[in-house]
Amino acid sequence: MGLRIGIVGVTGAVGQEALHLLEGGTLPIAEIRLFASSRSADRILSFRHEPIRVEEVGEERLAALDYVFFSAGGSVSRRYAPIAVKGGAVVIDNSSAFRMADEVPLVVPEVNAKTLRRHSGIIANPNCTAAILATAVWPLHQAAVVERIVVATYQAASGAGAKALSELDAQVRQYAAGEAIRKKVFPEQIAFNVFSHNTPVDESGFNEEENKVAQEIRKIFGEPTLGICATCIRVPVFRAHSEAIVLETRRKLSAEEAREILRHAPGVVVVDDRQANQFPTPLEAAGKREILVGRLREDPSHPRALALFVSGDQLLKGAAWNAIQILERLAAG
Amino acid sequence: MGLRIGIVGVTGAVGQEALHLLEGGTLPIAEIRLFASSRSADRILSFRHEPIRVEEVGEERLAALDYVFFSAGGSVSRRYAPIAVKGGAVVIDNSSAFRMADEVPLVVPEVNAKTLRRHSGIIANPNCTAAILATAVWPLHQAAVVERIVVATYQAASGAGAKALSELDAQVRQYAAGEAIRKKVFPEQIAFNVFSHNTPVDESGFNEEENKVAQEIRKIFGEPTLGICATCIRVPVFRAHSEAIVLETRRKLSAEEAREILRHAPGVVVVDDRQANQFPTPLEAAGKREILVGRLREDPSHPRALALFVSGDQLLKGAAWNAIQILERLAAG
Repeated sequence: MGLRIGIVGVTGAVGQEALHLLEGGTLPIAEIRLFASSRSADRILSFRHEPIRVEEVGEERLAALDYVFFSAGGSVSRRYAPIAVKGGAVVIDNSSAFRMADEVPLVVPEVNAKTLRRHSGIIANPNCTAAILATAVWPLHQAAVVERIVVATYQAASGAGAKALSELDAQVRQYAAGEAIRKKVFPEQIAFNVFSHNTPVDESGFNEEENKVAQEIRKIFGEPTLGICATCIRVPVFRAHSEAIVLETRRKLSAEEAREILRHAPGVVVVDDRQANQFPTPLEAAGKREILVGRLREDPSHPRALALFVSGDQLLKGAAWNAIQILERLAAG
Repeated sequence: MGLRIGIVGVTGAVGQEALHLLEGGTLPIAEIRLFASSRSADRILSFRHEPIRVEEVGEERLAALDYVFFSAGGSVSRRYAPIAVKGGAVVIDNSSAFRMADEVPLVVPEVNAKTLRRHSGIIANPNCTAAILATAVWPLHQAAVVERIVVATYQAASGAGAKALSELDAQVRQYAAGEAIRKKVFPEQIAFNVFSHNTPVDESGFNEEENKVAQEIRKIFGEPTLGICATCIRVPVFRAHSEAIVLETRRKLSAEEAREILRHAPGVVVVDDRQANQFPTPLEAAGKREILVGRLREDPSHPRALALFVSGDQLLKGAAWNAIQILERLAAG
């Protein structure tokens, strides 16, 4: 008997990736239902060569599904995820709406799949930057106990959705055509620029994205007091995030030991060729499910610190692929 | 009596900026001589409405000058700077050739102008990333003693010269035209990508750029044991570098105190509006002589650490403007 799966927000950048991953995957799917806002309803998408009409998301339509993936923003998740659960589904939610709720597992399968055993119908998919960081750092935490994380990010436009991807594309075309560059989605020009993540800044000076990274890593790792200092910056890249990370560990890790650990870690590919100067780049990470990890080196400014650089596809491990991994684990029981 | 000034490497990105800064400045200039490689010799440039012919750099031509600015790479500086000094000039060298030599002052005027008093004819202009970092961090070091610096950079194409600027421009035009993107100057695609700085990596895993930043900051600050961990990354930005910095200080600095100190610091403009989400960007820093500093906040993962984000024009404070400041100090006696 096959699964009945719904995707809410299917016309968004992450929803599209989720649809493609399910299409190319091996899960037995009996029925797939596609949902979006009224603006995108009635569009016809294709799934395994069958045309499927996009439905406007609505209460009665979310019944009789086994799994529903939500990626349409926090307010849609808050309104409709509980309805889908009441209808009998397990929800995998890509918004931040439920991530920090005690009864909701926040899952990176390579790290804390075991927390999937107990839930109340909703599983939260982490923030993209947190998921990418967690996948790369967890194997090192298991080996040497990470006590502090300092991270500066290089975040792609895709994290702000399909419209942001279009804006980067449009701005470089405006530049090439000698036209004035126009801003609509981002408050700052994204082409040929970098800027501090445009989420609200709290009284401590950290923005929402940075706070999410810190809180979510603590929850995913099960380390409520882990010290994290994040600086989240947007760069003019389409779809993979990169992160410059410095870890302080309880036990000193050599670069060589870290490299060996990561070579055998799930979901990670080591790209660390010092001679050829080949290290992770977002261009290389785009389209890949794995996180690329490199620039492994001991930090000379601390007795037990390790520096590394990672790139991971924001739409895949940072969002849709991590969610599909959760779905596969749940479906496998 | 006016000064006789030479610029070696005048047709490069930094040389052009130096020429414009001298043109718009107030130094009394009696004679200006412009030098480049044989490829660019005989080009006619203009200085204060006078046409000036570019000369091929050569031994006999470097005599009878008061100050010569070199920005034509390490090998040109190594060969010709001592000749210019022998001819009676003081050399301000933008290459890395002499920066770490004991008898050569390495100068950011806002930090260590006093070291200009003793020299043997050559003054070194720092690495761009180091000059920008030093200008922003020095006032905080004076107030609270910086004990460790962790920095991740967002470095513009201009740091690799005029050809690299052209490559970024060409690659986005190729993208907009639907053509394949071609690489010539950088080993990795620079448009829509970020990559680890393409200087050689040593056995510790740090690349030459990162080692320069660490060594030069120690020399400029006069702190030979200061701990520094740099990750140097190129981003698709034309001409200003940005840096995400975390400082550990001996005495705890609050964000508010740091902001006050920086508001009164020379060469620095504080851009730190949390409500309006306005912080330094390389686009805003481009063309400015000052370093923009913001995102000031206390790092919750350490009892005495401060995070900040800076942007500074790589060609100005990162190169030509810092050199002209040195020249002005020397000329003022």
